[in-house]
Amino acid sequence: MFHHVKELQFNARVSKADPYFANLLLEQFGGENGELAAAMQYFTQAFGAKVPHPDKYDMLMDIATEEFSHLEIVGATIQMLLKGVNGELKDAADNSEIMQIMNGKTAKESIIHDALTANPQFAVITGGGVTPRNSQGIPWCASYVNSNGDLTVDLRSNLASESRAKLVYEHLMKFTQDPYVLETLSFLMTREVAHYKMFEAALDSIQPNFPPGILAADPRFTQQYYNLSKPESALGPWNQGQMPGMSKDFEYIEEPLAYVKKKATEKPSQETKRQLAQTEKQNQKFSKLKSDEVKKADKKDKGQWSDYDKG
Amino acid sequence: MFHHVKELQFNARVSKADPYFANLLLEQFGGENGELAAAMQYFTQAFGAKVPHPDKYDMLMDIATEEFSHLEIVGATIQMLLKGVNGELKDAADNSEIMQIMNGKTAKESIIHDALTANPQFAVITGGGVTPRNSQGIPWCASYVNSNGDLTVDLRSNLASESRAKLVYEHLMKFTQDPYVLETLSFLMTREVAHYKMFEAALDSIQPNFPPGILAADPRFTQQYYNLSKPESALGPWNQGQMPGMSKDFEYIEEPLAYVKKKATEKPSQETKRQLAQTEKQNQKFSKLKSDEVKKADKKDKGQWSDYDKG
Amino acid sequence: MFHHVKELQFNARVSKADPYFANLLLEQFGGENGELAAAMQYFTQAFGAKVPHPDKYDMLMDIATEEFSHLEIVGATIQMLLKGVNGELKDAADNSEIMQIMNGKTAKESIIHDALTANPQFAVITGGGVTPRNSQGIPWCASYVNSNGDLTVDLRSNLASESRAKLVYEHLMKFTQDPYVLETLSFLMTREVAHYKMFEAALDSIQPNFPPGILAADPRFTQQYYNLSKPESALGPWNQGQMPGMSKDFEYIEEPLAYVKKKATEKPSQETKRQLAQTEKQNQKFSKLKSDEVKKADKKDKGQWSDYDKG
Amino acid sequence: MFHHVKELQFNARVSKADPYFANLLLEQFGGENGELAAAMQYFTQAFGAKVPHPDKYDMLMDIATEEFSHLEIVGATIQMLLKGVNGELKDAADNSEIMQIMNGKTAKESIIHDALTANPQFAVITGGGVTPRNSQGIPWCASYVNSNGDLTVDLRSNLASESRAKLVYEHLMKFTQDPYVLETLSFLMTREVAHYKMFEAALDSIQPNFPPGILAADPRFTQQYYNLSKPESALGPWNQGQMPGMSKDFEYIEEPLAYVKKKATEKPSQETKRQLAQTEKQNQKFSKLKSDEVKKADKKDKGQWSDYDKG
Amino acid sequence: MFHHVKELQFNARVSKADPYFANLLLEQFGGENGELAAAMQYFTQAFGAKVPHPDKYDMLMDIATEEFSHLEIVGATIQMLLKGVNGELKDAADNSEIMQIMNGKTAKESIIHDALTANPQFAVITGGGVTPRNSQGIPWCASYVNSNGDLTVDLRSNLASESRAKLVYEHLMKFTQDPYVLETLSFLMTREVAHYKMFEAALDSIQPNFPPGILAADPRFTQQYYNLSKPESALGPWNQGQMPGMSKDFEYIEEPLAYVKKKATEKPSQETKRQLAQTEKQNQKFSKLKSDEVKKADKKDKGQWSDYDKG
Amino acid sequence: MFHHVKELQFNARVSKADPYFANLLLEQFGGENGELAAAMQYFTQAFGAKVPHPDKYDMLMDIATEEFSHLEIVGATIQMLLKGVNGELKDAADNSEIMQIMNGKTAKESIIHDALTANPQFAVITGGGVTPRNSQGIPWCASYVNSNGDLTVDLRSNLASESRAKLVYEHLMKFTQDPYVLETLSFLMTREVAHYKMFEAALDSIQPNFPPGILAADPRFTQQYYNLSKPESALGPWNQGQMPGMSKDFEYIEEPLAYVKKKATEKPSQETKRQLAQTEKQNQKFSKLKSDEVKKADKKDKGQWSDYDKG
Repeated sequence: MFHHVKELQFNARVSKADPYFANLLLEQFGGENGELAAAMQYFTQAFGAKVPHPDKYDMLMDIATEEFSHLEIVGATIQMLLKGVNGELKDAADNSEIMQIMNGKTAKESIIHDALTANPQFAVITGGGVTPRNSQGIPWCASYVNSNGDLTVDLRSNLASESRAKLVYEHLMKFTQDPYVLETLSFLMTREVAHYKMFEAALDSIQPNFPPGILAADPRFTQQYYNLSKPESALGPWNQGQMPGMSKDFEYIEEPLAYVKKKATEKPSQETKRQLAQTEKQNQKFSKLKSDEVKKADKKDKGQWSDYDKG
Repeated sequence: MFHHVKELQFNARVSKADPYFANLLLEQFGGENGELAAAMQYFTQAFGAKVPHPDKYDMLMDIATEEFSHLEIVGATIQMLLKGVNGELKDAADNSEIMQIMNGKTAKESIIHDALTANPQFAVITGGGVTPRNSQGIPWCASYVNSNGDLTVDLRSNLASESRAKLVYEHLMKFTQDPYVLETLSFLMTREVAHYKMFEAALDSIQPNFPPGILAADPRFTQQYYNLSKPESALGPWNQGQMPGMSKDFEYIEEPLAYVKKKATEKPSQETKRQLAQTEKQNQKFSKLKSDEVKKADKKDKGQWSDYDKG
Repeated sequence: MFHHVKELQFNARVSKADPYFANLLLEQFGGENGELAAAMQYFTQAFGAKVPHPDKYDMLMDIATEEFSHLEIVGATIQMLLKGVNGELKDAADNSEIMQIMNGKTAKESIIHDALTANPQFAVITGGGVTPRNSQGIPWCASYVNSNGDLTVDLRSNLASESRAKLVYEHLMKFTQDPYVLETLSFLMTREVAHYKMFEAALDSIQPNFPPGILAADPRFTQQYYNLSKPESALGPWNQGQMPGMSKDFEYIEEPLAYVKKKATEKPSQETKRQLAQTEKQNQKFSKLKSDEVKKADKKDKGQWSDYDKG
Repeated sequence: MFHHVKELQFNARVSKADPYFANLLLEQFGGENGELAAAMQYFTQAFGAKVPHPDKYDMLMDIATEEFSHLEIVGATIQMLLKGVNGELKDAADNSEIMQIMNGKTAKESIIHDALTANPQFAVITGGGVTPRNSQGIPWCASYVNSNGDLTVDLRSNLASESRAKLVYEHLMKFTQDPYVLETLSFLMTREVAHYKMFEAALDSIQPNFPPGILAADPRFTQQYYNLSKPESALGPWNQGQMPGMSKDFEYIEEPLAYVKKKATEKPSQETKRQLAQTEKQNQKFSKLKSDEVKKADKKDKGQWSDYDKG
Repeated sequence: MFHHVKELQFNARVSKADPYFANLLLEQFGGENGELAAAMQYFTQAFGAKVPHPDKYDMLMDIATEEFSHLEIVGATIQMLLKGVNGELKDAADNSEIMQIMNGKTAKESIIHDALTANPQFAVITGGGVTPRNSQGIPWCASYVNSNGDLTVDLRSNLASESRAKLVYEHLMKFTQDPYVLETLSFLMTREVAHYKMFEAALDSIQPNFPPGILAADPRFTQQYYNLSKPESALGPWNQGQMPGMSKDFEYIEEPLAYVKKKATEKPSQETKRQLAQTEKQNQKFSKLKSDEVKKADKKDKGQWSDYDKG
Repeated sequence: MFHHVKELQFNARVSKADPYFANLLLEQFGGENGELAAAMQYFTQAFGAKVPHPDKYDMLMDIATEEFSHLEIVGATIQMLLKGVNGELKDAADNSEIMQIMNGKTAKESIIHDALTANPQFAVITGGGVTPRNSQGIPWCASYVNSNGDLTVDLRSNLASESRAKLVYEHLMKFTQDPYVLETLSFLMTREVAHYKMFEAALDSIQPNFPPGILAADPRFTQQYYNLSKPESALGPWNQGQMPGMSKDFEYIEEPLAYVKKKATEKPSQETKRQLAQTEKQNQKFSKLKSDEVKKADKKDKGQWSDYDKG
């Protein structure tokens, strides 16, 4: 159950209205890397974690709730940056001022002209208000949300999401000089970094956490780097030397087509068969382990979400 | 700022897993008339209402927060209805059981087979978890949200939204016999009715509230009912007799084309001119009134969302 | 079957080209509250109404057809506002003029420069023509359409749709001073009001029409107003006093969490049981009534849509 | 302006309800190649054609109006195929029958079970009615519509659209044995062929109509066929011999990379320069011709769409 | 299997950065008629053609691969037109310059200001890079792709796609004067014409190729032209005289409603029955022929895509 | 420039047709975590990397090209799993067999019935072919692609993408027993792991790579963990003890509201000011460093993408 308190998590303020920046800031309200996307991602991940991983459930719900609180901060800032637009629109019978400006007949600044130029829908659809769309008007869409029922995957999705969100705030900070807004953006940007660290620590606390999911990599196909962008690819630690955290070296395939043809018809060696059998065994063991972890938790679950007696 | 408490607003329970109903229920998690749509609609409307209409802001935030809490109830129910799917998927190395079932070689029921049939993404994308999509997999989309910066419009959008949400719960109740789930659905359906009544009372408290927005209807074009679906349309209170709440009668236009041609070239009568002038005057007055209401509130606003000193 | 006549339903004119306003006006051609959305909403609702409610079918088809006619008016106005763009694009081999303007080397106004600035797709995709997208280029999408097979719900959706469409026209009228265009917008805005009144009358003619759909509200959950946006919510007729049109008072829940915990474990009282039984009985009766209404009409239906013998 | 008459353009009938086929048929109501897509494509193309090409405007509006009439036929058929679903849903208080069936406890057929299986939204969202979505629930989207302000392009888009629509009807006919439905599908499929012929004749009546648009092809880049799918591509009239309707032969580029490198640094020959100059001259001439055609028509246009005096 | 070589298929260059044109050019990277749409269309068509029509498979893969190479050229040009934006964004700690410009305090040109104005996402989301969206920010969407498993349909879709793509390049050429960019656009535009000719030749090589698909048109419904846009439609070769390539004349239906009513109740004549029987026979024969063609090829297929032994 | 060779990168085979699994496998062709998404993500990232980071450009293009090759493998497998559908559809005149099956009158298996049940569009839209949509028919959409012009962010997005793609293959392997298909899936799954390792190594090779982007975290807001999901959250390394890789400890905020109120009015301490100044200095330095890196590379760039002389 959610509660709302009227105070924002951060004391968001603006110096003056600025519809152009309001439009940019929509990216973090209704954009692909914005607060709604983050909130819904951790919120949906939490449901699946609750029974088998109650500690991670707590963390996911804490952070999801913080993201909903950030969504509110971003929305509040956008709304303050649009101050004056709604009042102007309500003056429905009088369009003399705006038209003078649009015709260039007067130099007077107009908040509604700015709103229209920044985003036509501020002026005709949202009535000068917040909307869950991005800076180009694309409605927020749940395909921004990655929630896949596996913590080692979900936490990695979250590290990436936080990284992108941090970068977008960083970019946004270049486009305003309002010290109040900058302070709010600095808070929000930093919280993405804080969340990153939390997800990193949570991922570290699961061992082994690689590869993501359950099944081991097939030993036949793990190490090849195919040189597919001819004539030659730069060399680096991503295609030569030891693979990070593995006891294998990268194998640089200079001529992919020839390699592929050869492999397509080649019979597996004894060593390969041995490795495959070992992988298979490891898969059986690890998948039993992980499956049991969930199934055992499931079994204790009584088909009731909350326990009101001890609450 | 939001807070989350671990107890659900309603004691949601399920008797046993049922992926088919879980998929149907997605309509109210990530569907067009579902809880996320309602929550985001009232939440975005609230931002614009805060300064000029602080009492309506409170109401919108209270109900938005309740809808987020309903979203959680729906998600929790879906998750419980999918019990067993994630554990089965984690048994990654073993597909013998599911395949026997898919090949029809055994009569044993399988939760994962049910999940797959109900919704392929339960089995391969969400890992047996909740997702903000509808029962056909369409990602939730912010174009479900109507928020237009005018309370007489927004509250009407909300009456319609609550009506549709209520109907969907009613339909859903035909497709389960689980008494626990039915009880939860009954709670959720009824809360839509309760919200309907709140929005109705709020709309009544604004007078005048018709027409929505500011401008009066143009007296030349208000009363005609065009008989455009030939040969003849049934008569009823919607095209004959007095218009509800107005001192005008509907005018049934038997032959729209002839009427349109006549009107296109006709000069306005003195009476029409008088009515237009009167409408114009009323528009000036009402738009000044409503504009001032917002502008006056705006003026008092100091560019700070929350007041932490008195909190 | 549809027919088209070349005359518009209103004598749409423009004084001169104006690509900026053409772009804004797209909201009512291909936007979420525009004419195509309205036309398709009433058109799809009509199919379901035809057999059980032939009089409402006539009304829905009449208004749907009028909305298609309005779509044509809006499209015609946009096209006239883009006059000159297509001709300029056809002058494909000569880009000297436009480029001089884009480089700021000449003060001469250019219709194609205006088109490009207003909406890049006017210049490169639509060839200076109409397109079913909104003012930010989002393609029209059928999720704007609400059609749910229940008249008490559908008519409420229509009241909301007409309210929003009216407001958008009102907003649009602030952004043009062309007297011809203003006259057309006034006509279109007013017809939304007229349709509102028709739908209101139609909804009134169905009794009882509350709650929408069939099932009565669950008496246990109808009256609570949860104070979820702390510390305190403003009081008003939406959370205290009698619920509109009901014999119950709102119940203001000061401390939702405590209330929820208490209710989650509480046994229902005898009075509650009595009320539930009564509701159940009423549901049985009303659902039989409404179901019979449809089934009886269905039974008379011979699987043929039109009757050409009497036509 | 549109009119509707209650008779369908074709006497659509069904033998009995069939929700599975109703769902399939949605492809032609709200799908990418369906009637709404066709109607909106020709309708939007018509606006741009009206002033410069009034005869093509008539044709486009005639066929658009016929497609709207087909949309109605398809919708009527879907609605008849869903007969019984709405009545069953209205029996809201009674879910005993459907649940028995879903539990496999009885062999009795149920229309609502069929509706649910065919398309979950028939049962919970549309109330057993028509919806502008495809057979997988994707809402109709205006990106299905191609309208580009050039008749030689638009008519080619229409030939392709009609071809696809024809094919989809052909496929649909494999999935029903209802003789009434088959007759309707045969009518609709054939009308696509008829429209194809109309568009073909209209395109032939414009000379020259190749290349589409205005500018001639650059003589340096017209004839090469790049063998990019190694080791070798089959030869055929599309990469050897004379190019259809042109005085040039295809040039088969055996080794694209070598060819590209050579061309990137090569200086143009005298012959190439001569050809380019000639092309440029032709472009100037043709673009003036086509531009003048539109501009002249534009000039006569008085900023009024319809002429009510002569109507 | 794909290979990439670092050289572009055409020596793409730009004279200087131009974020405005970069944004326009996105239409051909991630827009509805752009290179990704073309590449994915031919690529998906190729899969179905491989077994029954290996020669057409080669052509489709050759052209698909060329379109991927064009996608790279367009992307490279956009990237070069955005030169400077990323570097400016990386100067994250310093927003003094951009803000001075936005405040109009200095006349100095700024690449980042241009990027922001051209497309807000260049500045805050893509980091000054390429993105698969169109000039209004709409993400590329697979509903732009038409691939229907029938060559006589697919090739017609391709003729239309190439026509639209050609036109868009033509339009784009009006909005830049950079001679290098114009040269690249001329190359790309011309290649669309070249592909058009290839698809035309391929379609000609299939005989008969009309109607698209398999089934013949129903002789009862082929020739009528319904005059649905009253009062009268212009006459032309599309509604009178011989239908192109057919031995029938168009039949102009002056009064569609009367005609429809008459036909709805009319019994088929002996001649009509004879024609229907003949059509049915032809359908049987042709569908056997075409079906056998595919089935025979299928039969030879061993469930292995590539043959590495002969490769 | 791309080349295609007819051999697949892996010898994809199938034992027999299986439309159900073909539909599931669409997730990796046109789904959110599929091969097209991966290919387009690395391909668009590569453009921005080319000038400042040519070695990473090579890696991104190599892996993008491999993903396009995987897209082909997945498409080829889907096509083989649909063997027989197209041939059956071409037998357009004969629907006797399929209808017998649909009516349950015969037990004979039918490939076209399976195709229809698995995915209605296989039967009526794609003609039994591949389509860039997911297992529920959602068209592939570019909002699946994350490309943000910063390698430390992009590489993290790639780690997440590869993790999800790996998991989806793992899930898919539970739903087929065809040994050939399993072998192909094992190859594809493993390559995701291989790419993961390459991206990990590339990210490690950039130092410092945290925080992603340029700006340092604001020292005031980095370490707080807000306990927002009451009554209490489980403790773990993500909210207590040292933050990973940082010299700070997590600070657990037991009562977020009280904390927020206190902080909102508190003046910054001297220590905080010192930290802020230091952060600011670090930001200036690092942003100059990173900006110069890009700008210097930009400067050397001559506005020409490829160098054909040395190629």
